[in-house]
Parts: sequence; C-alpha cells; structure tokens
Amino acid sequence: MRILVVNPNTTEEMTEAIGAAARHYASPGTEIIPLTARFGAAGIDSNFESLLSAVAVMDLVSGYQGPFDAVVLAGFGEHGREGMQEIVDVPVFDIAECSAHVAQLIGRSYSVVTTLHRSIAAIEDRLTVAGLSARCASVRAAGLSTLDIERYPERAAERILEQARLAVHQDRAEVLCLGCAGMTGLDEKITTELGVPVVDGIGAAVGLAEAVVGMGLRTSKVCTYARPEPNQLTGWPITARVERSGRAS
Amino acid sequence: MRILVVNPNTTEEMTEAIGAAARHYASPGTEIIPLTARFGAAGIDSNFESLLSAVAVMDLVSGYQGPFDAVVLAGFGEHGREGMQEIVDVPVFDIAECSAHVAQLIGRSYSVVTTLHRSIAAIEDRLTVAGLSARCASVRAAGLSTLDIERYPERAAERILEQARLAVHQDRAEVLCLGCAGMTGLDEKITTELGVPVVDGIGAAVGLAEAVVGMGLRTSKVCTYARPEPNQLTGWPITARVERSGRAS
Amino acid sequence: MRILVVNPNTTEEMTEAIGAAARHYASPGTEIIPLTARFGAAGIDSNFESLLSAVAVMDLVSGYQGPFDAVVLAGFGEHGREGMQEIVDVPVFDIAECSAHVAQLIGRSYSVVTTLHRSIAAIEDRLTVAGLSARCASVRAAGLSTLDIERYPERAAERILEQARLAVHQDRAEVLCLGCAGMTGLDEKITTELGVPVVDGIGAAVGLAEAVVGMGLRTSKVCTYARPEPNQLTGWPITARVERSGRAS
Amino acid sequence: MRILVVNPNTTEEMTEAIGAAARHYASPGTEIIPLTARFGAAGIDSNFESLLSAVAVMDLVSGYQGPFDAVVLAGFGEHGREGMQEIVDVPVFDIAECSAHVAQLIGRSYSVVTTLHRSIAAIEDRLTVAGLSARCASVRAAGLSTLDIERYPERAAERILEQARLAVHQDRAEVLCLGCAGMTGLDEKITTELGVPVVDGIGAAVGLAEAVVGMGLRTSKVCTYARPEPNQLTGWPITARVERSGRAS
Amino acid sequence: MRILVVNPNTTEEMTEAIGAAARHYASPGTEIIPLTARFGAAGIDSNFESLLSAVAVMDLVSGYQGPFDAVVLAGFGEHGREGMQEIVDVPVFDIAECSAHVAQLIGRSYSVVTTLHRSIAAIEDRLTVAGLSARCASVRAAGLSTLDIERYPERAAERILEQARLAVHQDRAEVLCLGCAGMTGLDEKITTELGVPVVDGIGAAVGLAEAVVGMGLRTSKVCTYARPEPNQLTGWPITARVERSGRAS
Amino acid sequence: MRILVVNPNTTEEMTEAIGAAARHYASPGTEIIPLTARFGAAGIDSNFESLLSAVAVMDLVSGYQGPFDAVVLAGFGEHGREGMQEIVDVPVFDIAECSAHVAQLIGRSYSVVTTLHRSIAAIEDRLTVAGLSARCASVRAAGLSTLDIERYPERAAERILEQARLAVHQDRAEVLCLGCAGMTGLDEKITTELGVPVVDGIGAAVGLAEAVVGMGLRTSKVCTYARPEPNQLTGWPITARVERSGRAS
Repeated sequence: MRILVVNPNTTEEMTEAIGAAARHYASPGTEIIPLTARFGAAGIDSNFESLLSAVAVMDLVSGYQGPFDAVVLAGFGEHGREGMQEIVDVPVFDIAECSAHVAQLIGRSYSVVTTLHRSIAAIEDRLTVAGLSARCASVRAAGLSTLDIERYPERAAERILEQARLAVHQDRAEVLCLGCAGMTGLDEKITTELGVPVVDGIGAAVGLAEAVVGMGLRTSKVCTYARPEPNQLTGWPITARVERSGRAS
Repeated sequence: MRILVVNPNTTEEMTEAIGAAARHYASPGTEIIPLTARFGAAGIDSNFESLLSAVAVMDLVSGYQGPFDAVVLAGFGEHGREGMQEIVDVPVFDIAECSAHVAQLIGRSYSVVTTLHRSIAAIEDRLTVAGLSARCASVRAAGLSTLDIERYPERAAERILEQARLAVHQDRAEVLCLGCAGMTGLDEKITTELGVPVVDGIGAAVGLAEAVVGMGLRTSKVCTYARPEPNQLTGWPITARVERSGRAS
Repeated sequence: MRILVVNPNTTEEMTEAIGAAARHYASPGTEIIPLTARFGAAGIDSNFESLLSAVAVMDLVSGYQGPFDAVVLAGFGEHGREGMQEIVDVPVFDIAECSAHVAQLIGRSYSVVTTLHRSIAAIEDRLTVAGLSARCASVRAAGLSTLDIERYPERAAERILEQARLAVHQDRAEVLCLGCAGMTGLDEKITTELGVPVVDGIGAAVGLAEAVVGMGLRTSKVCTYARPEPNQLTGWPITARVERSGRAS
Repeated sequence: MRILVVNPNTTEEMTEAIGAAARHYASPGTEIIPLTARFGAAGIDSNFESLLSAVAVMDLVSGYQGPFDAVVLAGFGEHGREGMQEIVDVPVFDIAECSAHVAQLIGRSYSVVTTLHRSIAAIEDRLTVAGLSARCASVRAAGLSTLDIERYPERAAERILEQARLAVHQDRAEVLCLGCAGMTGLDEKITTELGVPVVDGIGAAVGLAEAVVGMGLRTSKVCTYARPEPNQLTGWPITARVERSGRAS
Repeated sequence: MRILVVNPNTTEEMTEAIGAAARHYASPGTEIIPLTARFGAAGIDSNFESLLSAVAVMDLVSGYQGPFDAVVLAGFGEHGREGMQEIVDVPVFDIAECSAHVAQLIGRSYSVVTTLHRSIAAIEDRLTVAGLSARCASVRAAGLSTLDIERYPERAAERILEQARLAVHQDRAEVLCLGCAGMTGLDEKITTELGVPVVDGIGAAVGLAEAVVGMGLRTSKVCTYARPEPNQLTGWPITARVERSGRAS
Repeated sequence: MRILVVNPNTTEEMTEAIGAAARHYASPGTEIIPLTARFGAAGIDSNFESLLSAVAVMDLVSGYQGPFDAVVLAGFGEHGREGMQEIVDVPVFDIAECSAHVAQLIGRSYSVVTTLHRSIAAIEDRLTVAGLSARCASVRAAGLSTLDIERYPERAAERILEQARLAVHQDRAEVLCLGCAGMTGLDEKITTELGVPVVDGIGAAVGLAEAVVGMGLRTSKVCTYARPEPNQLTGWPITARVERSGRAS
C-alpha cells in the first residue's frame, strides 16, 4: 500500500518529521511518500494561508506521477479535504478528522490543543463539517504559532501541557488530540502527567488509511465527491506557471 | 461607498450580469466595482473549483489598487469568506450567507434552490459554519450546472420553479433563496407563481454591505479574522506568476 | 422611506433617546417616527411586562394613521415580533435579532450584555426562535434593571464593561451586542477598551430595515405570518378603552 | 387541591368543555375552576390573538379572588406561560408542554396534530423553548381553524385522523397529542384506528399539576420566574378599564 | 393503584429507604411494592454494574406474581428503561427522567448532582436519549460512591451542597435534581440554603406514575416498545438458575 | 494481534459467519477469536434481548482465559459497549459505531439499513451516544427479524435493496451501512446496483481495532471507563450459575 502524506506548508523539515511519524505508525507493507507543498506559507496559521495550502496540495497531488492508494492531509484544521476527495479516486484522510475518529473510539470525550487562538474556529468548523463535534469537549490553544512551536520546543511543551491539563480537569476531556504536527513528541509526556491517551494525528490518519484501503473501500463518488465535470480551467495547474516564473517569493 | 463585487469564476459575462444586479440594488451613493477571477473555472460546480476560486478571489482583491469599503463574494456556497475577512479590513459579504440573513428577517423558514445536487453539501456547510442553518428548510438542486443555467434559460426556469414548489409545499419554506447568480431573473416568476418572497443573493449582499458600512462597523480583528502575521510565503500572489507565464490554460 | 421605531415601554425619555439613535443611523432619505407604548411598564424587566408590551406595541401600530415602510421593535429580547409580522404587511425588525444578524456578519461569535439576570432566558429564547443562537457565545447580565441603567450611568458603564470583558476573554466573543436601549452610549468605550466591535441594536434594525425595504421585500404572508383571519375580537383595540377610562395606573 | 383552568379565548362553550375535560381527569379531591378570558379572540389562530390572550389570561388570574394551587393554561401553543409563572407563586402548566411531557413518558416519539398550518410554528417554538422538541416527530395541521373544528366535527375528525395516520406511518410517531381543546373527543377513535396512545392536553396538565403540587413543589423563583419588581405600570389591570368602558368589541 | 418500585441494587436497606420515600409521596389510594434486585451490585457506580442491574430488574419484574399498574425504576441514570418498557404493558418510570420532567415544569433549567464523576456520562446519556437534555444546565458529581454516601452522610451532605451551589451560581440552574436515592434527605437543606426547589427522583416517578396511570395511558406498543416476539431464549429467567445454584457471590 | 469477536446472540452459525467475515478483513498477523454468548436470545430484536446480551457478552469476555488485544462487539445497535470498556483494558469496538466511523471517512452522509422497525431507535441512540449521528442520513428497516434474514435470504436481499435505494435517492445517503451481521453478503450487490460503497460492520470493527491497537492506544481509564471499584457483587459471573443449573432454556 502506498500513501501520499502531504505537508500543506512549504517547510521541508516539517515534511521530514511528518514522514518519519507516518513511517513510525505505518504497517510493514505500507510505503509512505511524503510531499511538500510547492507554494504557500512556511507554516499555516490563518484561513488565508490554509486556503492557499488547499490549492497547493491539490496541485501537488494532481501532478503526482505514479500510483497511490490513499492521501493523508497532514495539516490540522486546514481547508481542502472536500476538494481532494473529488480529484482523486482513492480515499483521503484529514489528520484533524482522523484524530477525532480515533479519540472517540477510545474515550467518552476529547479535546484538541492547537497553536494560536485564531486557529480554534477553523478546527471547530472542520470537526463540525465532518460530523465529529458532539464528543469534542473543547479546542484549546497554546498561544504559539506553528513555527514558534518548532523554534521553542520547551516553552511550547509547557504551554501545551498547561492547556491539556485544563482540558482534562475543566472540560472533562478523556482523550487529547495534538492539533499540530510540530507537537508530535509530546504525547508520552502528556500521558505520563495526565493519565489520558494522546492521539497523534499522523498516526491516526495512517492507521485509518490502512484500515479503509484494507477493506477495499474508496470515497463515494455518487454525488458530493464525484469527479468535477470537464470544465474550462484557467491557470491550472498552478505549479507549472509558478515554477516557470521562478519559485522564490 | 465603494463595494468590490467579486465574481469567483472567470466568465466575464457573468461578472457583467452580477455587476448589473449589484447596481440595480445599490443605493444612489454606492459605487459598484465588479471584478472577475483571473484564474480558475469558467463556472464553479465542485469543491475543487470552489477552493481554487477562493484563492483567485483573495489574489484579485489583495492586488486591487484603490480604496473600497466592502467586498461582496458573489459565489453562492463557495469556500473562502474566512480568508478574505483576514486579508482586508473592510467587512466581507458572502451572497449565500446574506441571502439567508435576509430570508430569516422576512419569514419563518427558507429554502435554497441551487444548481447541481453535488453543490447541496457545500451550501449546507456554508450555512452551518455561518450559524444560519436553524431556519433553513432545505437546500434543493435543479440538476443543472452553473453554465447550463446560462445556456438553457427556459429549461432552467422550469426546473428551478419545480424545486421551488417542492420547497414551499413539502419543506414548508416561506422564503426562497436562489443559489446561483445565473438565476437572478427568476424571482418575479417564482413570487408570482408561489406567493413567496424570493431573495436575490447579490441584492442581499449589497444591501447588508451598505447597512454594515453605514453603521461604521468592520470585521472584528480581535482573534479569528485578524490579519495573518507576517509569514514566509512562496508563490504569492499567484497572478503575477500565472500571468507572466501566459494566462491561457 | 418611513420607519416606525416603537419603544415598548411607557417612558417618553427613552423613546426620545431611541429616536435620536435611529436618526443617527438612518440614511438621509429615511424618516424615523418614534412611538411610545400607551400602556404597560415604564421599563421592561420581566416576561409579564414584556408580554404586556407586545400587546401595547401591536395596539399602537395598528392604530397608527399614515403610511410606513417598516417597523422597528426597540425592545431587546421582548415578546411580540411574530404578532406584529402578522398585523402589518411591511417588514418588522426586532433589535435583538438585528443585533445578532449584524454581529454574525462581522465576527465569528458574539455575546450580548443585558440588564438583569432574569432577562437572559428571554433573550436566549428570542435568538433561538429566530435561528440565531449558533454563533452566540453567551448572554450576560450587568445586574441592573432597565431603569437603573438610566439612573446610574457610571455604575452601569462599569458593570457592563466588566461583563463585556468576560464575554471576550472567557466566552471568546468577537463582537458585542448591547442588550438594552439605555446602553447606547457605551459602544465606543467598549471598543476602545476591548478592541471588539459593538453593535447597537437600534442602528442594526434601522440599517437592516433600509436594506430589506430597499430590496423591495416584505414579510412572507404565505403561512405563519399571514394576516389573521377575520375573527370575533373582544376589547380590541385596547387603547380606546384604556384611554376612555382614564390613563393613569 | 384547587386548579384554575384558564381558557385563553372568549368562548364560554369552550370553557365549559375544557372544564368538563379537566374534571374528568382530576382526582376526587381536586377542584377545577374554569375561567374564560375577558377580552381577546373567540378562537385563537394567530400570534396576534395568542399574545393578546397571554395578557388576557394574566389579567384574569391576577384578578382572581381566592386561593388556588396551580394554573393550567388551556391554549395549545399559545404565548404566555413564562409571564404567568412570574405573577403567581403556584406552578403553571401549559397544555402543549404537558402533552409532550406525558407523550415522552409513554413512547419513543410523538407528533402533534393541530388546527391551521400557520399554528405549526408557534407549537414548534413552544416545544423548543420548553426543551421538549428532541422527541417530537412532527407537528401537523388539519387545515381547519379552532372555531371550524367546533362547527364541523365530522370533517374535522376526518382531517385530523388523516394527519394522525401520516404522523404514525411517515413520521414514525408512537404517541399522538391533539393540539386543540376542540379535538378532545377524538382520542378513542384515533387509538382504535391507529393503535397509538393519544394524549389529551387538559388531562395531561391536570395530572401533572396534581403530581407537582402533591410533591410540594412550586415554580423556582430564584431568577427567571421571580416576581417582577415593583414597577410603574400604566393601564394595568386591563379589564377594569375595558369593562368600565363597555365590553363589546 | 399498585406501583412496583424497583431498587436496582441488592442492598435491602436502600430498598427500604426507597420504599419509604415512595410511600411518602404516594397518594392515599396508591400501594407501593418495593423490590430488591436479586443479583448484581450492592451499589451501582459503573456501566458494568448498571447493565447487570438492568437485567436483574427485568428478571425481577418479569417474575413478579400479581397485578401492578406501573413500574418505577429507582436507579438514577441506570440502563434498562427501554427493555422494561417492552416486557410489561404498564407504563415504566425512570427516576432520572422523571426528575428532569418535573424540574422542567417548575424552572427554566435544572442541574443534577450525582455520586462519582464517572457516573456523569451515564446520566447525560439517559437524559439525551429521553430527549430531556436541552434544559439541563449541568450534571455534577459529589465525588463519593453510592455506598459512601450512605456511610458518611455528613461529608456527603457537604460535598453535595457544594456542587449544588456551583450548579446554581455558575451553571445558572434554577432547579436541582438529586442523582442518587441515598441523597433523599437533603432537599430541604439545599432549598433552605440556595433557595431553589429540589426534585426527589422517587417522588417525581411516583407522582408521574399516578398521573399517567390516572389518565388511562400505557406505553405505546406500536413499534419500539412492542413486546419482543417469541424467541429462543437460553438461561432466562436468570434468577431461577442463580438461586438454584446458591446466591452468595 | 488477537481480537475477540463476540457474537451477542446464542446462534453458533452466526458466530461462524461473523468469524469468517472477521478473518476475511483481518490483516495477516491478526488472530480472530470468535465467541458466542452463553445465554440470551438466538437472535436479538428487542431492547430486552439486547440488554440481556450486553450482560452475556461481559460475562463471556470477563471469563475468557488468555491474552487479547481488542474486543469487537458484533451486535449492530446493541447495548453494552460502555460496560465492556470498563471491564477490559484493551480497546472495544462496536460494529454499529465502527460502521459509522468508516462511512463518514468515505462519504458525505450515510444510512443504515437494519432488520425490524423496532430496532431503528436503538441504532439511532447508539449513534447519538457515540457522537456519530450528525452525518447519519437515516436508519431504515427491511421489516424482517434477524433470524428471518438468515432464513429467507432472497426476500431479505430484495427488501434490503429496496430500503438502500430509498436511502440513496430520498435521504441522500452516499454510503450505506448494513445493520445486521446476517446481511454481510449483500454489499457487492448494493454497490453494483446503486453505485455507493457499502460498509461491513465486522470489517470496519476489525480494521479500526487493528489501527487503534497498532497505534499503541487503549481506552482512556481516567474517568468514565475506569475499572469499576471493588464492589459486593451477587450472582456474578452469571455463567457459572447458569451452567451449573443446566443451560437449556
């Protein structure tokens, strides 16, 4: 089985970390293909950047040569899952949604700890649109941007743990989801300190991808996620043009 | 007052129709600036095209020279309002949401009649995310694409009227919203036949824009829709590159 | 355009303040006709008084001589909008609902700050019934009656600001609505201190009235808000009798 | 135990029927005091008439001389329960809400069959505001006014039965509530034909009143339904004035 | 009227207390038959024990000789009401649901104070499944097991009062429900200290049973709660076997 | 990895079919241990039987000798998952919930087709309690009991296909879940005829079990699903007694 794991931002180091995490969770027979968005933001902390990444990610996957069995969208709370489901036939796995699915399977309620307060609404919307908000106890923010979490790992750990503690003690979360790929190393620490399981989004998406592909299932193409009809498109794919004109911003 | 009215697809004829509708509804002192997306689809009938349009529209507005007081997003059920709210300081008006606001002001419940069945989910999600689904009786589809509605106006009218009738008689809608700019001329016909008011999305958005701007209000920048922090962006704006490399698809 | 702006309580000073606010927000061509309830309470702080005001307000408007294009109900959270929608053909605008509509247009979520704790439920119900509660972060009370807010403006300002602060910081409101006509002057102060836009209910209702009337729309008369059928009525209108018998309580 | 059973319309014959039904369901020790609204409509089929009745009913009860232990509001879906709860200390029972309570106790889901289509929204709102809509399968209308149901009992029976059948077979209702006092005699017929229990609103309200009073409970006065503070009231009570000036409309 | 009041745990002392409470609330003509589960836990504080009790209670009632008119399930938040409704024809009253019904009749919102935190979810689910969660302000836990509440009445009273206070002041509950039979004596104390009515679950269930039976109503057998079809059952009833083999654990 | 797959009814043939399905979907390294309830019903079509099976299943698993990594509860819509989560430390997978999880991953909305109409409510409740009802388009019934589906496979296929068609065309389901183990063979037929993916509950549960166990996750024991505290239990485990006294019903 081959899974494309797409980092929606342009930072190669994060792609590597995401790829490593995906491989860590993948079954022996699964091949992980990590990809990096060719345009957009170095770290996504706004709807503007998130929408841009949605297009970058579709651009990337639609230009990918070679077979694959599933796509993992490795941005937590980003826009775009519905579009990707249309342009590929294989199933598509969003890490925020997959985290919530797994969390609901192992606990009564879950909370998400994300980066900035401004990202809370986007995650809430993604969970709502996916029909997964009923067991969400809260979405909390550490108050640090995606890049700052990479840069200041200790401060980040402290702040994330603080919010995780509030999620468990105030919001009655019984499972935690880490709402940013950069938070990956923290699960053990949180489980040790708070006694609750922590779901890693990449792991959840890879695991669910293997399960769904293993069952022989694909996205329903009967209506909402059918292939777009042939249409007159201008400027698509974007990369060809972006790259032809020089890629640096 | 100057309002940018942005057609998210690339069809200039539709921009003209949208501009004309906007001017029809605008107050005397209001200047309407219709704009056409520079890349993307000729008519938007999928999430893929809609996400692409969200970026095209942000690209267009962020490159617009000169002052403006409001932005109207003239795509019914498209992605992207949240991103636009971040990158401009003036308030932003999505025609699907504005239709629902106006409909709720004049009736107990409303239905939307849109183009293809595959677009129902996107409109439902937009209304849900905007907190406007509680009084939505139904979203129904005429079974014709955006471009076909332009091409076959008679068949379109018949099919739309048929769904409007079901909305009123089966779903108990008391107000109708037309979920596609191309449907603009039909309100009178529907009101005559079914006795219910019909809300034109462009008119609703222009009217609410005038009201909100007139009150001296702007989008709250305190959290979710704050300006994105300065970030390392690759390939943005897109148009420069797209255009430099030749615009034809 | 002529808008009746109806103060549901019997205090003329409040009617004057409401009228002034309405004129402040109205467009040049709009004429504001402020009216005062002829019976009922001097300030409305209970369901009993609110229901009484609903009848007083219908009595007042149904006896009004001369044309008008819209009715603004200037009581925040009062009963009665549905009845008024039935007995007039022009559209009707409740200030609590209009505040919420405008707030949703300019922010992710809003809170209301009202007078007494006992009024919270009535406002929540009004928003729920109007389909506007999904984006309501909270309804909070300053703990002062409508008349006390008039009487002790400084203490009122302090208490309202305190609740506004909690709404923004604890409930994550991004827009505030002031749930009492007497709070009108406070918007600037709150915006300055908390950085969030504040919606004035009278302004919102006047603005939306102008927009809806400007679009040529009226309340749907197809079912729920149709004119009541001719019926045998006793004691209606009330004023004639009340006044004939001497108005003092 | 003494229960005031208040007919919100002015038709004495209906009061008599309501009183008879109440006595039929009351326990031996319970005294039923039927009362008729002194002003308002002969039959309530609109929000306008319903709001008027809410005031008439409060006027009536607040002027009632002598002790009582509970108030039953015998209008199905009328406004006003919240106001009555404030002005009396004894508990208050709305027949629409009580029907739903009893229906939920004996079945998975219930439907209401009411008079006119325009009354559906008011009943839905009453159930929602009372927190009783989750198990409501549907509110359906027979298409006859309150007075027509009195006048044409056979046609009414037929139409009501037809809607009851649809409620059971299409909406999966397992219990039916008759949404109009005039429908009282039909329960047996419906139960015989459809096999589902039918809840009579008057019976439900009297039964719940006896239960709650029997437990020694009263309305919570801690916040929402506290007695209104002393206030400057004009024109209250209304009856004194209405009657002084001659009661005929 | 004869009501079976079934204690789902095996502690006879609790059955006696429950029976005494039931008799205290019952009308003169009502006979209370208290029954004790013949197997299961001495006090129920988990889903495991609760499911076991559901079967024990069905076993007990299906083996009961002699007529009865209603069954009261005296476990707060336990599983099993739906099963009991199937195997008897008389109506069935769960004390958690009945508490909520009565609470909604006398106040705007209610909270439940239960034993352990782990029981909160079960009570929330019971209220949700019964369609009674919309007016539930909170379910709070005293942090003591069912048996500890019996054992340490003073500490229990203190802890329960503390949670009741938070329910009223933080969650805005206007009525309280005590979520454990062992809490029965505390209502007066709470009402005195906090000014809110307190609903006793046993009293609520007995009162509603008398009301529903008095109306001549029974559980709807049309679909969900119809008698199970004859089926091949192994090991049922359980008691016969359990007892034959010696009852001690 | 070893997964206990528990048939909640007593029919060994169904256990075999379930075991075969589980093995079909399991990964090479996974060992499937099918188990049959030792008491209860031969086929579960009521809450009574379902609650009995919940206890039978807990009894069975708590008496199982040897290690295991996950438990699959192979009854669609049965009670008991919460109890099993408490008494084992490994994660527990209910086939109704797992079907819904997988369905949501591959489509906008899903419907369930189950056996009898009386089972619809139980499935709805299970999905609601698991937080999975938001994307459920409908639960439909074929009108045949669990055993009849085994007995009359052709008639069953026809009836199930009929409901599946209505789910897709009327309720807009994009994915179907088969709500009964006996329906297992039908997925291909439905996919061929209706073009929608069909989720097999056993396959979904096995796949998700492998994913969750593979991630190293277990049920959160921090609150709701913690091990029951040591308690005085009578008659537990049941089997010992049931078997000692002879197993035949």
